[in-house]
Amino acid sequence: MGKATLFRSERMMAGLNCFEPGQEHALHAHEGMDKVYHVLAGEGVFLLEDAEVPMSAGVLLAAPEGVPHGIRNTGQGRLLVLAILAPAP
Amino acid sequence: MGKATLFRSERMMAGLNCFEPGQEHALHAHEGMDKVYHVLAGEGVFLLEDAEVPMSAGVLLAAPEGVPHGIRNTGQGRLLVLAILAPAP
Repeated sequence: MGKATLFRSERMMAGLNCFEPGQEHALHAHEGMDKVYHVLAGEGVFLLEDAEVPMSAGVLLAAPEGVPHGIRNTGQGRLLVLAILAPAP
Repeated sequence: MGKATLFRSERMMAGLNCFEPGQEHALHAHEGMDKVYHVLAGEGVFLLEDAEVPMSAGVLLAAPEGVPHGIRNTGQGRLLVLAILAPAP
């Protein structure tokens, strides 16, 4: 999984997360931090404890603090996601 | 200018800002808040005190705290922008 930071302050970090086909960011949660994902390209699923939500370009997903979430690339190409975290980790 | 909130917590607000042709959000600044814009559709300019930056789909722009910024729709159609503010206003 590749990461690139686009903007960072104490309050916010915006960056790109890039998943190769089959790559997965396993279920995890953050205390005191909210995250929004905006899917830019590719196909995947947003993993929740009891559900999987399809990801494709244009989809916006939120992971509020304490909510376990993950991402899996289920497509044939790269899955590119804009991730915005507040506050910055 | 139309606004719609997509996600909101104390730490972050993510929403859509929609500008009709010719509409403008004049130069303004926020203390203690950072903002990131992701252009989804349309054409416009990102206004700074001493520059104007072209806006089109895919462009990401940051307005850190204290930096005067604005947006003007210079296109023939709607300018749609994902705006993420931290913390939420």
